[in-house]
Amino acid sequence: MHRRARSPEAKLRRTEDLLEATRGLAADRGGVRHITLAAVTEAAGLHPSAVRRYFESKEELLLELAERGWGEWRDALTSHLAGARDLTPEQTAAAVAGTLASQPLFCDLLTHVPLSLEGDVDIERARRFKTNSFAAYDAIVDVLTAASTMTSAQVQGVITVALALTANLWQLSHPTPTLAELYAQHPRWGHVALDFEPRLTRLLQATAFGLASDTGPVTMARGPEVP
Amino acid sequence: MHRRARSPEAKLRRTEDLLEATRGLAADRGGVRHITLAAVTEAAGLHPSAVRRYFESKEELLLELAERGWGEWRDALTSHLAGARDLTPEQTAAAVAGTLASQPLFCDLLTHVPLSLEGDVDIERARRFKTNSFAAYDAIVDVLTAASTMTSAQVQGVITVALALTANLWQLSHPTPTLAELYAQHPRWGHVALDFEPRLTRLLQATAFGLASDTGPVTMARGPEVP
Repeated sequence: MHRRARSPEAKLRRTEDLLEATRGLAADRGGVRHITLAAVTEAAGLHPSAVRRYFESKEELLLELAERGWGEWRDALTSHLAGARDLTPEQTAAAVAGTLASQPLFCDLLTHVPLSLEGDVDIERARRFKTNSFAAYDAIVDVLTAASTMTSAQVQGVITVALALTANLWQLSHPTPTLAELYAQHPRWGHVALDFEPRLTRLLQATAFGLASDTGPVTMARGPEVP
Repeated sequence: MHRRARSPEAKLRRTEDLLEATRGLAADRGGVRHITLAAVTEAAGLHPSAVRRYFESKEELLLELAERGWGEWRDALTSHLAGARDLTPEQTAAAVAGTLASQPLFCDLLTHVPLSLEGDVDIERARRFKTNSFAAYDAIVDVLTAASTMTSAQVQGVITVALALTANLWQLSHPTPTLAELYAQHPRWGHVALDFEPRLTRLLQATAFGLASDTGPVTMARGPEVP
């Protein structure tokens, strides 16, 4: 039996229920790829017609999770790097890769944000997402720059490559049942697709080393990068 | 007035018409994101019911274009590097970035392949895509390794980062009308989103330099990477 949320507190609780249900479904299904708003509503125990009072669309709901993901990544890096100083480029890259890999839903959403989420919600919601994600991004750049021997421009390059590599390798490492069956039949395909965090870390460390080196690439460095 | 394709030649021609129509729609709409099979069929001048004789789904049609894209990228790199020897890591990265950026549809599809295309077609079609894309990938690794001072493992690292950065930065640089309006209002957001090829080239050159350096990262190099 579904009851309407009558108070602001109840409405806030319903919103959190929907976000929590989405997290659960994403974990169960290996990503948000095939999640529908109907499935989320059912998992949250709300009446199908009720969800629209909280989110206009699946894109708006997932963008909310992506926006929170930015804040959670900023917080994870801030506590991970508390007291750290003079980290080498490789150590800096390892901190970025490790804290990203510890947030699987955020890793998944990094592909969906530019592909469909931020562009398919209304402009004011998109503006709020950009404002808040850039604020988290700027804080992350400051934390990393203070903890490492890298410049702000170098750190921003590391973050841009980290976000792109994480988005791409996360999708590769979460195959559909069809692909998982192929990977079982063709070990090479599976080996290269499923090696997410080690590959992310290794390639990001090489990028950080290159950006921090006093050669061509770094002299070309220009910030700011994009969250 | 629509006529059925009666001969193998006519059927082949219809298939090419559908692929050509998709290329046209993708160019007009800044990506395959919102393309439907119905729109492709109409643009190709086929009866709505006819398309199923050629492609089971939009995913199968787009995967065909992605598979061809791999061959076209291999051919572009092969002719671009004809006679090249001892390219530095930065020159090697520039060749990879430039030939990728010259294939906008392939850049776009790099996001869609792991997200939905290769996992949503039947297993035999997915197997054929993996077989052919890995064959093109292996040829690309050989061509780049022969033309540069980099090892095969280093080249494979460059390609993995190139594919991820290209996929992510291409989507960022092709905003929806809503996002384009936001970028006009917030120059910083637009500047960082729209600077596709220069950012791709610069960050890939830093990665290539780092992978080719005799320090931590390269000693960790393990191939093969994944197309």
